[in-house]
Amino acid sequence: MTDREACVVGIDFGTMSGRVVVARVADGAELGWAVHDYPHGVMEDRFDPTGQRLPPAWALQVPEDYREVLRTAVPAALAAAGVEVDAVVGIGIDFTACTMIPVLDDGTPLCEVDRFADRPHAYVKLWKHHAAQPQADRINRLASSRAEPWLPRYGGLVSSEGEFAKGLELFEGDREVYDATALWVEASDWLVWQLCGRLVHNACAAGFKGIYQDGRFPSPDFLDALAPGFSSFVPDKLRPTVVPFAPLGAVAGRLTAEAAAWTGLLAGIAVAVGNVDAHVTAPAAQAVEPGQLTLIMGTSTCHIISSEERHEVPGICGVVDGGVVTGRWGYEAGQSGSGDILGWFTRTGVPASYHQEAWARGESVHELLTRLAGDQAVGEHGLVALDWHGGNRSVLADHELSGAVVGMTVTTKPEEVYRALMEATAFGTRVIVETYRAHGVPVGECVVAGGLAKNSLLMQIYADVTRLALSVLDSEQGPALGAAIHAAVAADAYPDVPTAARAMGRVRRDVYRPDEARALAYDGLFALYLELHDHFGRHPRLMRSLAAIRRDARSGAGGDRA
Amino acid sequence: MTDREACVVGIDFGTMSGRVVVARVADGAELGWAVHDYPHGVMEDRFDPTGQRLPPAWALQVPEDYREVLRTAVPAALAAAGVEVDAVVGIGIDFTACTMIPVLDDGTPLCEVDRFADRPHAYVKLWKHHAAQPQADRINRLASSRAEPWLPRYGGLVSSEGEFAKGLELFEGDREVYDATALWVEASDWLVWQLCGRLVHNACAAGFKGIYQDGRFPSPDFLDALAPGFSSFVPDKLRPTVVPFAPLGAVAGRLTAEAAAWTGLLAGIAVAVGNVDAHVTAPAAQAVEPGQLTLIMGTSTCHIISSEERHEVPGICGVVDGGVVTGRWGYEAGQSGSGDILGWFTRTGVPASYHQEAWARGESVHELLTRLAGDQAVGEHGLVALDWHGGNRSVLADHELSGAVVGMTVTTKPEEVYRALMEATAFGTRVIVETYRAHGVPVGECVVAGGLAKNSLLMQIYADVTRLALSVLDSEQGPALGAAIHAAVAADAYPDVPTAARAMGRVRRDVYRPDEARALAYDGLFALYLELHDHFGRHPRLMRSLAAIRRDARSGAGGDRA
Repeated sequence: MTDREACVVGIDFGTMSGRVVVARVADGAELGWAVHDYPHGVMEDRFDPTGQRLPPAWALQVPEDYREVLRTAVPAALAAAGVEVDAVVGIGIDFTACTMIPVLDDGTPLCEVDRFADRPHAYVKLWKHHAAQPQADRINRLASSRAEPWLPRYGGLVSSEGEFAKGLELFEGDREVYDATALWVEASDWLVWQLCGRLVHNACAAGFKGIYQDGRFPSPDFLDALAPGFSSFVPDKLRPTVVPFAPLGAVAGRLTAEAAAWTGLLAGIAVAVGNVDAHVTAPAAQAVEPGQLTLIMGTSTCHIISSEERHEVPGICGVVDGGVVTGRWGYEAGQSGSGDILGWFTRTGVPASYHQEAWARGESVHELLTRLAGDQAVGEHGLVALDWHGGNRSVLADHELSGAVVGMTVTTKPEEVYRALMEATAFGTRVIVETYRAHGVPVGECVVAGGLAKNSLLMQIYADVTRLALSVLDSEQGPALGAAIHAAVAADAYPDVPTAARAMGRVRRDVYRPDEARALAYDGLFALYLELHDHFGRHPRLMRSLAAIRRDARSGAGGDRA
Repeated sequence: MTDREACVVGIDFGTMSGRVVVARVADGAELGWAVHDYPHGVMEDRFDPTGQRLPPAWALQVPEDYREVLRTAVPAALAAAGVEVDAVVGIGIDFTACTMIPVLDDGTPLCEVDRFADRPHAYVKLWKHHAAQPQADRINRLASSRAEPWLPRYGGLVSSEGEFAKGLELFEGDREVYDATALWVEASDWLVWQLCGRLVHNACAAGFKGIYQDGRFPSPDFLDALAPGFSSFVPDKLRPTVVPFAPLGAVAGRLTAEAAAWTGLLAGIAVAVGNVDAHVTAPAAQAVEPGQLTLIMGTSTCHIISSEERHEVPGICGVVDGGVVTGRWGYEAGQSGSGDILGWFTRTGVPASYHQEAWARGESVHELLTRLAGDQAVGEHGLVALDWHGGNRSVLADHELSGAVVGMTVTTKPEEVYRALMEATAFGTRVIVETYRAHGVPVGECVVAGGLAKNSLLMQIYADVTRLALSVLDSEQGPALGAAIHAAVAADAYPDVPTAARAMGRVRRDVYRPDEARALAYDGLFALYLELHDHFGRHPRLMRSLAAIRRDARSGAGGDRA
């Protein structure tokens, strides 16, 4: 085997499926790939094991679905690539985050223990499980009142998605499951544990999602002030003195015989430290240098950027030492909804005639709506929308916010609402870019990754709204390629991730350039968006009341039906 | 012929069609009816004679469509009723308002004059032509600064729908058409003129739509201050010294031989003074006594009530002496959109699967959505909407306001938005009821008329939201029956409209009663509606900016397409 033939496997564990890519170490060429949908998907309305209705904002998964990706999609990708198994020198994974699993000492998920199989809290809490907002609110209030030094690292507000908010929700929501939990583990770290038999905290998830800063988790007296007894959470469930912290690109361990049997790979190859799906995409997009913003646009959007300096940027998700590449400060901001808002609208808000027309033309409804939306001049729809259908991650960090459309008339057409929703997500990104810049993190270039990068109207809207030229990650499997890059570094094929990214990352530069006439027209709409943003977002009482009324009504506390 | 056999014909000229009823004078029994759709409908996007695109907020009609109703639907209704033509003792009509026609001295509409046939301003401006909002704004500003005594009679704001706003729009928009206009006539009065050869100003339209108060139109110096030269509008185009003002229920004249030939009726029968579709419905609903609110719910909603006293109620459409029944003060308030918002949503916002399910069950999509919406507890959808898709008539009187939905998530379902829109219209009615009460006009009973009265979920929502028991007009042809009642009075069969209403009106009492548990739950949502109402409505800059941006973009002043 020559170096030119050496390969690595990268696996991206997403919201609905796992995607496996086999990439050549020398140049990142994707030799083969496979995808496996999670059989259980996401449990949001209904808890499948008992059929009970889940409260609003819940989102659970089943860990066996992840193992199935190893058993089915890895062999399939290897077969598709047509490479000899001994050419594979390493494996790396990324995962959605913060996605938490309560497990026993040996790594067995609690939901796989018979007596907990019917307990929702024993299951994987997916990143978009937002039911811990009350806990996040309390963490934020207390940390703010005590001026906890870590709070500004999270933009002044930690998210309901995070490890501590979800941990406190478990502590208070099902003490029996909490007590039986030996370890509260990020799914990324759990999966690496399944592969190499060794549990480590990856620097990205621990920093961005786990409030791990300057070598410490939040202090015991902070946690006890939050909820008496909760100080045990760190030593008992996270075990920082036992479970080591590992930098990105490091080797977590070697593939076990069991994992080799699952995957068809050879035991003993390097297993890279886990990573988070958004952050791992930056090297795949060759965007790990300071000033390079990676925009990962799928169901939601992440905004990843690195800097030599640490700045405190209000409202972003976090800034973490080595959180994107070792030796630099990594920044993350995000929008809770982007593609899923467009998907929701296309599924539920578009009449039959549009579906028929799309079918007759052999295009998808998204394509039809995009084509019709592209015929509109900027502002012609008279609409402005808020893209908070999944809450707001940055810069408001409030998952009880919700979506809005303002300006409808009885002549408003579906393609007009669709375009307004597209624009709303672009305005949300502009808010984040302007916030980065205003607080010392320059944004000079933007590389877009993720499924939405294929929509050229959407991309042009983003370029026009942000006045940034957009480059595009030239791969259908950005996160998996990023995981593969980390595998190559773990396998010692490259000295570090930036070097590997230069060799293996793939990008088409400046594909979309802003048009100044449209940019000016968007400035007017953006001003109105900002008005709505500040009115509903900085003073969230109305939307939070709606969320509370909905919760009460669903729990039967509201009025009778009719 | 005995009295028991005497009949009258009532014609309701609505937005899309004319409806004719033949009613028995003795008891209002509807012996037959017919409907004729206007062949030209409403020109809103496109001006049919030239194919040119109309600016936003235009709505034009073709007067020949109204004559066709006389020629086709009157004979059809007579045939359906099976009555001898000599049994018919009178005819009355009502019309949408303010719906204006520029005509020559002999009543010929300007659009029927060859050289004006391709001029949009020469056509009928339908009530919902809202393009005169800038003119209405100027009228309101000037009248307010001069403290014009008539302004409080219109709630402090005249509407862009009104006779003077539309007249000023014509004066400034197409001076040639304006100069050629011999008379600027309400369609109701024009139609009566076509029937009996005599033009009168009916008290209802003149008062509510024509700023005719205390025997005067606005003063010449006010009109010249508005636009130099516009003082000629009153003497030249409205001619108050030549065209008499006539009370409701009076006889305007006798059916001409020409009109007898069109309709198949006998020449010489009584032709009642014209009336407006909403106001004429109150006697059909037996709701002309003080405290009885008539809610006419069709594409839009009107709120008609009478009182012995005159009060100045801010934001209502108007208070007019004899504007509903002679001898009392009639009050009108309104919502620009109700049924048309639900219709728009059903047409454009509901996916194919719902249409398929409705078809499979043999129900309409409205029925399907209503059934699904009825399964929700109050507030379960987490939504609050503004019902301003056609602007706001009362109590904000601003047609540049627009609709909004707040609170969407990616799990929001079409039936939830549908219910939120239903509720928004109910909240809009509650605002009006509370405003009436707060300013001295008691509301004790509510009688609902119009197509939406058939939707029992909607009716229950209105009862719960307003805490009013709802009675229902027991006729499919409420306005036409009201016009027939006026015909009976004009034919001297009754001494006055209230007496005729008691004999001929039809109502089912207290069909819907409020449920206090739901009413309490709605109080919470109504508070949020009021917040949105005041935020977007009392400070209309954002929605007005959206309307301005839309106008500019459509006129090509905005950014390029893409």
